[in-house]
Amino acid sequence: MDDSRPGTPPHVTPAVAAVGSGSTALLTDRYELTMLQAALADGTAHRRCVFEVFTRRLPAGRRYGVLAGTGRVLEQLASFRFGTPELDWLADERVVDDATLEFLAGYRFGGSVVGYAEGEVFFPQSPVWVVEGTFAEAVLLETLVLSVLNYDSAIASAASRMTSAAVDRPCLEMGARRAHEDAAVAAARAAAVAGFAATSNLEAGRRYGLRTIGTAAHAFTLLHDDEEAAFASQVRSQGPGTTLLVDTYDVHRGVECALAAAGTGLGAVRLDSGDLGSLAQEVRAQLDAAGAHGTQIVVTSDLDEYAIASLAAAPVDSYGVGTSLVTGSGAPTCGMVYKLVAREGASGELEPVAKASRSKVSVGGRKAAARRLGPDGRAVEEVLVVGPDEAVAGWTAARSAGGDPSLRPLHVPLVVEGEVQPGLTAAAGVRAATERHHASRDELPRGARRLSADEAAVPTVELRLG
Amino acid sequence: MDDSRPGTPPHVTPAVAAVGSGSTALLTDRYELTMLQAALADGTAHRRCVFEVFTRRLPAGRRYGVLAGTGRVLEQLASFRFGTPELDWLADERVVDDATLEFLAGYRFGGSVVGYAEGEVFFPQSPVWVVEGTFAEAVLLETLVLSVLNYDSAIASAASRMTSAAVDRPCLEMGARRAHEDAAVAAARAAAVAGFAATSNLEAGRRYGLRTIGTAAHAFTLLHDDEEAAFASQVRSQGPGTTLLVDTYDVHRGVECALAAAGTGLGAVRLDSGDLGSLAQEVRAQLDAAGAHGTQIVVTSDLDEYAIASLAAAPVDSYGVGTSLVTGSGAPTCGMVYKLVAREGASGELEPVAKASRSKVSVGGRKAAARRLGPDGRAVEEVLVVGPDEAVAGWTAARSAGGDPSLRPLHVPLVVEGEVQPGLTAAAGVRAATERHHASRDELPRGARRLSADEAAVPTVELRLG
Repeated sequence: MDDSRPGTPPHVTPAVAAVGSGSTALLTDRYELTMLQAALADGTAHRRCVFEVFTRRLPAGRRYGVLAGTGRVLEQLASFRFGTPELDWLADERVVDDATLEFLAGYRFGGSVVGYAEGEVFFPQSPVWVVEGTFAEAVLLETLVLSVLNYDSAIASAASRMTSAAVDRPCLEMGARRAHEDAAVAAARAAAVAGFAATSNLEAGRRYGLRTIGTAAHAFTLLHDDEEAAFASQVRSQGPGTTLLVDTYDVHRGVECALAAAGTGLGAVRLDSGDLGSLAQEVRAQLDAAGAHGTQIVVTSDLDEYAIASLAAAPVDSYGVGTSLVTGSGAPTCGMVYKLVAREGASGELEPVAKASRSKVSVGGRKAAARRLGPDGRAVEEVLVVGPDEAVAGWTAARSAGGDPSLRPLHVPLVVEGEVQPGLTAAAGVRAATERHHASRDELPRGARRLSADEAAVPTVELRLG
Repeated sequence: MDDSRPGTPPHVTPAVAAVGSGSTALLTDRYELTMLQAALADGTAHRRCVFEVFTRRLPAGRRYGVLAGTGRVLEQLASFRFGTPELDWLADERVVDDATLEFLAGYRFGGSVVGYAEGEVFFPQSPVWVVEGTFAEAVLLETLVLSVLNYDSAIASAASRMTSAAVDRPCLEMGARRAHEDAAVAAARAAAVAGFAATSNLEAGRRYGLRTIGTAAHAFTLLHDDEEAAFASQVRSQGPGTTLLVDTYDVHRGVECALAAAGTGLGAVRLDSGDLGSLAQEVRAQLDAAGAHGTQIVVTSDLDEYAIASLAAAPVDSYGVGTSLVTGSGAPTCGMVYKLVAREGASGELEPVAKASRSKVSVGGRKAAARRLGPDGRAVEEVLVVGPDEAVAGWTAARSAGGDPSLRPLHVPLVVEGEVQPGLTAAAGVRAATERHHASRDELPRGARRLSADEAAVPTVELRLG
């Protein structure tokens, strides 16, 4: 073990340590370690393996999914280390034997990962991540990879439907209170990938360079002796460009009061209850009659993609979305799995493998993937390239050298021999993913962005080589 | 600012810092800080306030909710500090002005909290937390308190239905891969509160002293040249008491193979696909025929409370639950809100306040709460005690001195003038919460544990004093 391993810094109090010791290595199912122990003992731990991350189906009625979380996995790879606190605990609990502890102490992921670019859309069977390494190094990552990709992709997939429904109006992420406190930060990030314009979450702002928004809750109005006092105070503090929440008592009285406090230069009013469509029309008329033509209307209150779509004709300027965003709007997780699809056999050759029992059948072998585009540049098919390993590798090499413009390869390098590739993490990673999502969604066939339940927007087909 | 404030330790690399800087203070919606700034400027920030956490309704068809997360909020209170990294970021982003930054630098929650004991069941309007302090100190906690209580309670509420359905058979938490990686740890903890016997999540085991479980996945079988080799290796490594996953190829062949590897002393077999009920019967017969009467059957594969109930007559020994647990089985968040219900007025007296617009009406004023028990000791009503503040305080004092055994008071002290009360956090807190949940659920009226959709198990009524 070297000195660079993370651990609980000595000055951190126990309460702080409970939040996170810095190591992500124990965010892992126990069986990954027990499998490792047996495989180290019998020698198979060193077999070269290919694991694939994919989902068997989209949530009912959804037409596409959105891959998100890539940058977050890659950020956490560096801290996926078994330091003294982790090793001591595993030893005390007799989770694994001494030989395994020794292996874990030196553990670094030295393998490679290719995957869909973060923000890319995906379909059933799309091999969104392909992890290659020894069994030992690749199996340990299963739980963390799935946790991150499943949650973040669920949020981005819902968020994309919301930004689609909102067309050009900004969507604002406000769901922190309805998600686990750290999941909330990830949700804000995933929402940004899918086109959300800003978040209420300060930590997400700090960590990923997102724009943060927020002015006041009902409590601020109730704290004051009356609405006049509350609005006057907020305008003094935040300037007339602020957003005043006008529905604590009576909305129309609230709007009057807001204009009295801020003048016709008031930035926005927020409506957080009631029949938002008709209320927005009434408030717009009231604002316009007062000459506050530039004052915007922000609506919040249990919005989802359907509510957003239903407000398309209402004079609404932006949508604040909370609960339904951070819970994936009915699909709070993706069903992504991390499956062994090929491994070195006794001969030293890579051999395809697949579970073959009554359900949950998988297609073995390493795959490449591409999106076939029609003459109008729109997606027609999700193409899984399967066949002998060298043939698939050859296909990939040929594609990356250029070639058929109607077949867009989907795998990009994420980790090369343990090295996370540049530009994928932190704020830069989020910006790149947002761009990718935008381009990828624009490429979907017409109709793919309809909210109504339907099949996947394009079929997933196999292109079998050699 | 003093030296004890947390911050990013200098030796932590950026990737580790992204996991968490130790401070929980920015897990907060921006508007809490902008409200604070305006209230500091106008003097209302120092008004004494009472905030209440409650939910307006249970998820459709649910008969009770389970409060969880209390210990996690209290653990994070100590690190809810604005250290240099947080203050610098807020200053750089101009989130708040200098006076507010100065206030934040010295921020410690010095108020008091009473609440339902963790693990207690709750109903619509139950005041599960009552936070008292100045506006400034109490409003800052809103987002974190709601994030934790909403997520953890959603999981515990679903978990309680599962352990109810499983009756005496153990439920095992295995959902890490289908939840955000930190939410997964909280989910394992919440499941334990609601009676789950163990978790696959190592970090949850470490942090909360939970029993961890897990042996092998399909990948382990596929890694080997054949099932025989895989099972032999696992038994060598883990002993014959291990659990062998028998459905990678053919289940009956798998069971034969498992018995050949481990003998009739095999601990358990796991079934992860197919028609689990009939499969369990066939496998039980096969095991018994071979003399492996003590070998247990563990079932996994997208179980929820209904699937568990449907397996009641099958020879199943324990249930592994993943996705539906960590996503709240259809209700991935509680709708808990954090509402100002009373505040010091201009006169210096505490005055009830409530939002009064078209929907989302709240009952103002500080409340006490009790559960009314019938002659058989079972719950009859959830009683909200409302009225003038002194009267409610007097009622609480009288109850805590003993009195009417048919009215069980529900509020216990959680934080007293900034001091977290003992026994509520870490492993001890989880154990106490598990006991409380058990006792509280046993007290529900007969029929309250039915899975079928129905109203709340008891009505919530008001007892108005004075």
